[in-house]
Amino acid sequence: MHPALDHHAWTESGLILGGRPAERLATEAGGTPLFVYDRELLARRVRELRAALPEALGLNYAIKANPMPALTGFLSDQVDGFDIASAGEMRVALDAGMPREEVSFAGPGKTDAELRRAIAAGIIIEIESAGELERAADIGAELAVQPNLAVRVNPDFSVKGSGMQMGGGPQQFGVDAEAVPAVLDRLSARGAQFHGFHVFPGSQNLRAEVLAEACERIGALVEELGRNAPAPPPRINLGGGFGVPYFPNDQRLDVPALTPALERVCARLRAAFPGVTLRIELGRYIAAEAGVYLTRVVDRKVSRGKTYLVTDGGLHHQLAASGNFGQRIRRNFPLAAASPARGPEERVSVVGCLCTPLDLLGDDVMLPGLGPGDLVAIFQAGAYGLTASPTAFLGHTPPAELLV
Amino acid sequence: MHPALDHHAWTESGLILGGRPAERLATEAGGTPLFVYDRELLARRVRELRAALPEALGLNYAIKANPMPALTGFLSDQVDGFDIASAGEMRVALDAGMPREEVSFAGPGKTDAELRRAIAAGIIIEIESAGELERAADIGAELAVQPNLAVRVNPDFSVKGSGMQMGGGPQQFGVDAEAVPAVLDRLSARGAQFHGFHVFPGSQNLRAEVLAEACERIGALVEELGRNAPAPPPRINLGGGFGVPYFPNDQRLDVPALTPALERVCARLRAAFPGVTLRIELGRYIAAEAGVYLTRVVDRKVSRGKTYLVTDGGLHHQLAASGNFGQRIRRNFPLAAASPARGPEERVSVVGCLCTPLDLLGDDVMLPGLGPGDLVAIFQAGAYGLTASPTAFLGHTPPAELLV
Repeated sequence: MHPALDHHAWTESGLILGGRPAERLATEAGGTPLFVYDRELLARRVRELRAALPEALGLNYAIKANPMPALTGFLSDQVDGFDIASAGEMRVALDAGMPREEVSFAGPGKTDAELRRAIAAGIIIEIESAGELERAADIGAELAVQPNLAVRVNPDFSVKGSGMQMGGGPQQFGVDAEAVPAVLDRLSARGAQFHGFHVFPGSQNLRAEVLAEACERIGALVEELGRNAPAPPPRINLGGGFGVPYFPNDQRLDVPALTPALERVCARLRAAFPGVTLRIELGRYIAAEAGVYLTRVVDRKVSRGKTYLVTDGGLHHQLAASGNFGQRIRRNFPLAAASPARGPEERVSVVGCLCTPLDLLGDDVMLPGLGPGDLVAIFQAGAYGLTASPTAFLGHTPPAELLV
Repeated sequence: MHPALDHHAWTESGLILGGRPAERLATEAGGTPLFVYDRELLARRVRELRAALPEALGLNYAIKANPMPALTGFLSDQVDGFDIASAGEMRVALDAGMPREEVSFAGPGKTDAELRRAIAAGIIIEIESAGELERAADIGAELAVQPNLAVRVNPDFSVKGSGMQMGGGPQQFGVDAEAVPAVLDRLSARGAQFHGFHVFPGSQNLRAEVLAEACERIGALVEELGRNAPAPPPRINLGGGFGVPYFPNDQRLDVPALTPALERVCARLRAAFPGVTLRIELGRYIAAEAGVYLTRVVDRKVSRGKTYLVTDGGLHHQLAASGNFGQRIRRNFPLAAASPARGPEERVSVVGCLCTPLDLLGDDVMLPGLGPGDLVAIFQAGAYGLTASPTAFLGHTPPAELLV
């Protein structure tokens, strides 16, 4: 059984989410498809992280993983800060009640309009280039507000095994490590408030030993950069990149195995920079497993020996599950019947309702005799699901999102 | 030069679209990014098609390619019918003024709610399975409205060289050719109105000889199916699948080379079924080249020897251009400066504003010394652009769409 299914229970009413049958949640939502996010699974994940992370290491949530306002609001009481990637996400973060000084804005293409909003709001801006620093300083001068700037660093190493590489070599992300001293000089010269460093070398990594090594190297890098800075860094974001198991044979990340390395890095940085605020930034790892996408079978058809379950959902809601969001090879997301079994397991393909062959949700999967009216659940849907999908494609109604 | 750029002119003010400089259109739109769709290019494409297609072959527009209401409304006067893929697209089609009997609804996952709306509206429903036929008939009986049903046929052959295969072998699309006689019997038995056949074996094909052969085979197949039908088919949709050149070395489809085969098929079907209405269905081929996506450079940065132009656009608006919508290998869409050249050609990477390495719009392309404030144009953006992209991803404002 896929590890993502460990969190869930089935009764004679089918899949239970947040203590209630999936079918009843569909009725509550006004129909299918829908996303269900489970508060208890979110809270449990944060508790597990808190138990494994050093006490000195605070936890940020990266809103881009799932910006649903209710979910973000729920997490605002559980985590220490929010990382945002646009002025739109800034509104979600501040409306959720996160203090302004705990909201950090990263992203390589911040427009002047976004910088203006962020500086007016007083949040931390992670500077991604020398040019962005000058623009932020110009806007600060115009508004007569001292901008709060941290420097996002593109390290001089990459992290193996990340689903996406965002550090090492040439990058659109961050200031190359070797260019950081010059950028810090300009930051002081322009009268900005220095808020420290942010390093984020990659995402969706399932290997604890690789993440531990990356963390130690990030610690060494920012210590060196901080020692040569005009002022000690008040805040260091060590990145994240913790992965979740999507595909058959993916192993769960062993987070407790990271504790010793994280302890060493935190001790080292606190010794070098007394009073420094230390953070790790996680989005997918917090939200993915708390979410399930439910879609209803509309048609069951056999075409030349192959059985299709055609559903009312599809890639317009869950693009990643169709294999069309950053995957080189299409593999199935974990998927199961959410309605009670109707028969023995059989091999079927689960497709969406869209009129394109890309709309494949489960290729040759085993399901227990489902037919029209039954519900199918796709797991790991809490992060990079609805907002990372082309919801307007083919003009269907957007799905409901329930926080249960 | 990429063939998609043939339609466009540059002056000392930069790229001209619909007779006006791109920069002025950006101001008119209220800012960047934006999509610009050119009425004259749409109309010219339809005129060229009319010149190459047999007079007996009518032209349908598949709204899924670009459902912008104003664009659909403009095309409603130029084409003979609309193909739709959801009840949402049905509203766009009917609001655009297309007569109900010229609107056909295909798609493998039509819900009961959608069938109910389509039957109430009196449009043609392309039945995709035996089960869907029974559901439509049940709903027709309940509403006391005779449903207008055509049968979408999954042929017993596939078409080589299509970007996407949608016919031949097992498919979620259509009724297998060999099962059509039984479905037609049920259609008669259930008292539905028989509206003919629809075959759509694949999309984005650039090879005229392959499309010609496919068309002849479709003609032979529907002739045979029609001769054995309880009544002659009043309407036959021969599909489409005409491709446009996206990538370097893609050759433009030679549409006039299709004329002889289309003439033969039309003659054959009109001889077999006097008075039959014949249609071809094109979406991408009509809309793609009429559209340009304009995005502004926000930052220019050099990271370890590589130059990046960071723009305010990205995959949240133009997913296909980032290589994340059905492509196995990422290749650049045609792209050019829309602002006047500022210097000699240089090798740069054009990236979007999103905080993900997937957001790559032009990898190692040659552009003339662009920097912050300049506009970049991405071509072939009129079809499967905005609505096929995850607009909510990272919380940015949706772009404007202008029909000029």
